Formats: sequence, C-alpha cells, structure tokens
Amino acid sequence: MSGRLGIWIDGRPGDSVPSDDRGLQYGDGLFETMRVRKRQVRFLDAHLARLLLGCERLGIPAPDAASLRGEIASAAETTQGEAILKLLVTRGSGPRGYAARGLFTARRVLSLFAAPAPSIAAEGVALRIAGLTVAEQPRLAGLKHLNRLENVLAASEPGHENCFEALLLDTAGQVVGGTMSNVFLIREGSLVTPPVDRAGVAGVLRSIVLRESGKLGLRHEVRNVPGGELRVADEVFVTNARIGVVPVRSVGEHSYTMNGITTRIAAHVEALDA
Amino acid sequence: MSGRLGIWIDGRPGDSVPSDDRGLQYGDGLFETMRVRKRQVRFLDAHLARLLLGCERLGIPAPDAASLRGEIASAAETTQGEAILKLLVTRGSGPRGYAARGLFTARRVLSLFAAPAPSIAAEGVALRIAGLTVAEQPRLAGLKHLNRLENVLAASEPGHENCFEALLLDTAGQVVGGTMSNVFLIREGSLVTPPVDRAGVAGVLRSIVLRESGKLGLRHEVRNVPGGELRVADEVFVTNARIGVVPVRSVGEHSYTMNGITTRIAAHVEALDA
Repeated sequence: MSGRLGIWIDGRPGDSVPSDDRGLQYGDGLFETMRVRKRQVRFLDAHLARLLLGCERLGIPAPDAASLRGEIASAAETTQGEAILKLLVTRGSGPRGYAARGLFTARRVLSLFAAPAPSIAAEGVALRIAGLTVAEQPRLAGLKHLNRLENVLAASEPGHENCFEALLLDTAGQVVGGTMSNVFLIREGSLVTPPVDRAGVAGVLRSIVLRESGKLGLRHEVRNVPGGELRVADEVFVTNARIGVVPVRSVGEHSYTMNGITTRIAAHVEALDA
Repeated sequence: MSGRLGIWIDGRPGDSVPSDDRGLQYGDGLFETMRVRKRQVRFLDAHLARLLLGCERLGIPAPDAASLRGEIASAAETTQGEAILKLLVTRGSGPRGYAARGLFTARRVLSLFAAPAPSIAAEGVALRIAGLTVAEQPRLAGLKHLNRLENVLAASEPGHENCFEALLLDTAGQVVGGTMSNVFLIREGSLVTPPVDRAGVAGVLRSIVLRESGKLGLRHEVRNVPGGELRVADEVFVTNARIGVVPVRSVGEHSYTMNGITTRIAAHVEALDA
C-alpha cells in the first residue's frame, strides 16, 4: 500500500477536515489523482482543466488556479522518484441542507503518497465485468466527483481481488469504463472508446490517448460500445492517470492476442514530456 | 439557521474527521436526521433500523447498536425544547482505492442542532418540479447514503428558494420524491406514494405514515406515480422526520383544495408518543 508523505488542507499542513464539510456530508466535491514523476505532475493542465470544469458544472466556487498550482508544485518538489498527488476540492463548510446557494469557500485537501513506478505489463492484465450496472446521470457524467458509491460497490464485489479492474456496463448493456479507468478497444487498427456524457469519468489519460492517436497514425472513434463488442475487439486496454496505458489480456473468459498496438501507445504516452 | 449545539466523533466531543475518511473521499457512508422532542428522539428504532440495513447493503461494519443508542440518548438529554440530531456513519479511514474489502472500522459523527418546533402549515407549502431528472440505481435506492449530489443540484436550481421543496422525477417521468422528503398523493380517500426500490429514500416518516394509515381508516398503495397524476390528486403532502407531515398547496402552477385528510394525518402523527 502506498505510504502517505504529506497532507495539506487549504495549503497548510494538516490531516483533518471540519465535520460540516459538504464533501463529507453530501459528497459535494471533486477530485484529481495525479502522477508525479521527477518532481513534475504529469498532465497537470489537463487535470486542472477538468477540475475547474467540474467546479463550474457543480456551481462550486473554483479555488484560485495560481494558488493550486503553487501548492501542487511545492508538494511535487518534495518527492523523489514516483509519487501520487490526490487533490480533493469540496464546496467547503456550510449549514445543514442540500441547497448550495449563498457563499461557500471551497476547501482543498492535497495528499501526497509514495508510489512505485507503474510497470507496463506487456503480458496484460485480467478484467472482469462488474455485477453492478451503472446508472445514467448526464448532470454528473464525465466529472470526477465525490459520489463514488457505485465504484465502491463494484470494486468490492466477490472476486475483484483476482482482477486488475472491473468494467462497468449501463442498463442497456453498453460499456461505460472501469471502476478507476477508461477503456479502449482496438478494431482493425482504430481506437474505440465509449462517450462519457451519460455515465463514467472523462479521464485525463483518455483525453491524452485520443489526442495522441493521430500522431501514431491511428484513427479513433468515440461511440457507444455494446458489451458484446469486447469479444470481437483485436485488443483492449485501460487508462488511468496514475498507471498509464495498461494492456488487457482477458475480460472474463475472453482472451486477447497481444499484437502490439497497445504496447506502442503505452510506450508513446509514457515517453511524453509532461 | 439552526445553531450547532455539539458534535461527537465516535462518541467523543470533536469537530473534525481525518481527511482519509471514506465518507469524504467517496461518499462511502450513510446518515440519519432525527427530531428530538422533550429530550426523546422520535422514531429512533426506525432510524436505527434503516441505518443498520444501509450498513448491511453497503457492507459497512455496523457500529454497535447499544453504543449508538447511548450516545444518542446522552446528546438528546442535553436538549431543551426541540432539536435535531444528525448521525453520520462512514466506512471509516482507509488507504486509497475504491475496494472496501478488508477491515474497516466505521466512524460515527453525531451533530446536535437547535431547531424551532415544526409548525404544521395548515395553508400548505408550495412545491416545484425539479429540472434535474433522477437516475435509477437499485443498489442504492432507499438508502440515505452520502452520495447526494443529485439532491444538491436539484435544491440549488434557480427559483428553489421560493419553494418549500422540489419534486424529483425519474427518466420515465414518474415521481420519485422530494429532495429532502417523501411525497404522498390522496386520491378518493386513499394514500398513494411511489416505491423507493429504484431511486429515492425510504423515509422514516413515510414508513410511519404507511403504518398509521390503517388506524385512520385510510387505504394506501405503494405504486408508480406518473408526474401527470399530481394534477388529478385531491391532496398532496410531503413527509420528513424533522418536519413531519406537511400539506402541499401547489405543485408548480397546479393548486390543491385543502379538504382535511392531510391535516388529520399530520395531527395524528404529531401526537404519536415516540
């Protein structure tokens, strides 16, 4: 398990939050999990852009971006080798009641963890299909918000410990993504990944892979993926800001032959400067 | 605004929780909001039963019921007149990651608030239909869990401050309930309320009203309620453990004639011993 190296609450060292914080009371907030490599946060701009978009969509007053960048840079400076920075932004403290009208001051919780460097598992990882079916809520889809009970339940299903990740389907049987990752299929040299406008999270690595695919000579499509399409894909991989691009060797009983496109994408993304 | 009279974390006075609490990180927990009247918590057994059922459904190790009762009774003893006790139970602190396997120790946050006695508004309150459509997640339906962003968004819509409550519909246009209440329709002397097995919360006052309806000579039905049925109901009321049975005078543009059944139920429930 990753060891915790430090916590800063609103920029100051600390390890607790007031119990009236709306993040605790209602899950009223957002988070980002970022990879630190050589004291630099990978894809920091993309993480902050998603966070600020989330604040806008939830009506949370956005923390000052310059302060955020300063705190993140300071934390990253203290690291050696690989680390993880988790930034949580809540609507802050408030009186009882759901309504978020009135003045709130967002609260920031920045936690730094030691982490081993992710190893690109060339042999691939095993996935399973979650028993839990994901609900569709367009108002929250795409956001990395703090209402994560579906993910908790899916990741706690029997047998999950034997898999790297579980893929979540919606009520129509379409693939949404993993509990902590986005998923891509490769079909005839093209990348396919599901949209994230009704459920799921708009992953930072997902957006990086989509952006980089052209440079690798690969077409990509964002479209609905029926669960059954997993069985006819040439390759499958999952993405996550912390672990990068991870080849999948099996989903449930179905196995894939590794033919190298995923490995090429993984190496390309890992080699990016950011 | 209600004043806070005290907070106890795991039975000890305190006002903060560790930032690695899963309630904050993932909304991984449950809560109860209870009314204290004459130093007694109303419907305590029903609140605790719902909480423990929620723990079971989420796989949260339930806090010891005797300790909970003791803490609640001690807090209630300190009150004069009316008060509100909010009990929050989270899965407790844990390492990063959604999976809830392994040993967790639930954390309890008990907050006591001063509150005016609810007044039965004989003239009724005004409701509106929320713009937000509720997602259906049977795995979470009925529970008073900490993933409440839908409620926050609905209660933060423009114009909400001019209403007592907003009614939420599902994607099929069926009534789920209010953001902080359950809803009942009266049709030809019968009570009708929507099921809470696909969305919504199984309110404690809702269960009390259903239980007591027979004693008042009223039939009741738990069944789907299309939004349009609100316009043909004879009376409408909402329920909530803190405020009791509240007559509704209008939903959006549609007004109701008060013909007394709601007032009778409200008075009966208010007069119950518990």
